[in-house]
Amino acid sequence: MTDKIFPTAQDAEAAFYEALERGDYQTMAAVWAEDEDVLCVHPGGPRLRGTDEVLAQWKRIFEGGQRLQVRITQQVVIAGMMVAVHSVQENFSVPGETRSMPAVVATNVYLRTAAGWRMVVHHGSPAPGPAETPRDTPKILH
Amino acid sequence: MTDKIFPTAQDAEAAFYEALERGDYQTMAAVWAEDEDVLCVHPGGPRLRGTDEVLAQWKRIFEGGQRLQVRITQQVVIAGMMVAVHSVQENFSVPGETRSMPAVVATNVYLRTAAGWRMVVHHGSPAPGPAETPRDTPKILH
Repeated sequence: MTDKIFPTAQDAEAAFYEALERGDYQTMAAVWAEDEDVLCVHPGGPRLRGTDEVLAQWKRIFEGGQRLQVRITQQVVIAGMMVAVHSVQENFSVPGETRSMPAVVATNVYLRTAAGWRMVVHHGSPAPGPAETPRDTPKILH
Repeated sequence: MTDKIFPTAQDAEAAFYEALERGDYQTMAAVWAEDEDVLCVHPGGPRLRGTDEVLAQWKRIFEGGQRLQVRITQQVVIAGMMVAVHSVQENFSVPGETRSMPAVVATNVYLRTAAGWRMVVHHGSPAPGPAETPRDTPKILH
């Protein structure tokens, strides 16, 4: 589907969130393993199974046109030789707006395949409380 | 904490849901790995981190006294040598009642440790639609 190779799970995760933020379907397709047992749960949504079903939903989301910025915090990594599990908080915001949106907690699982590290599970669900906002940029005093 | 050994991830999962159903704190404590990076997300709740925090919450839940039956369906397993990821639908019901409760989708991660397979991640979140109810028991016609 694409020749992008992610040498580490962290590279695959960075590409996943860049693709999500930019609405970049090609990169999103490169991130996911091709397998009938990959799984994706969007917050409050049904569990999607298999690369075709998972990518079709990402395509619909990206075609919806709403662009969101996402900042990842609170990452916890459980890493093995072949499998890595990343737990993160996703903090979404609308570009140019300061209101905070609900936070999302996500469990991401990556597998080391012949074609580098690929995502096999993304499980996102609503977390209590608002998204974390970036610390105020320090004011420069003249 | 306990000398229970789970030879497979499936054994650990079975023990997890039995403990949950029975409100059996000792078995629940045996299921979880002892590590500051184990993670537990109850549906709609905050992410709990570390064995102490995770087990303290299970203790509170069990002390609450509400007992629920749980039936696991739609299991998908992604298994490696050292790590296993199980995705399931949890179908809860109140013993003796027929009303269905909201379904929960869960991602469970198990690690092969020196003391057998242990749970390191449980991420549960509300799934759309009601829990699956067991098929009607066939009526015996006389």
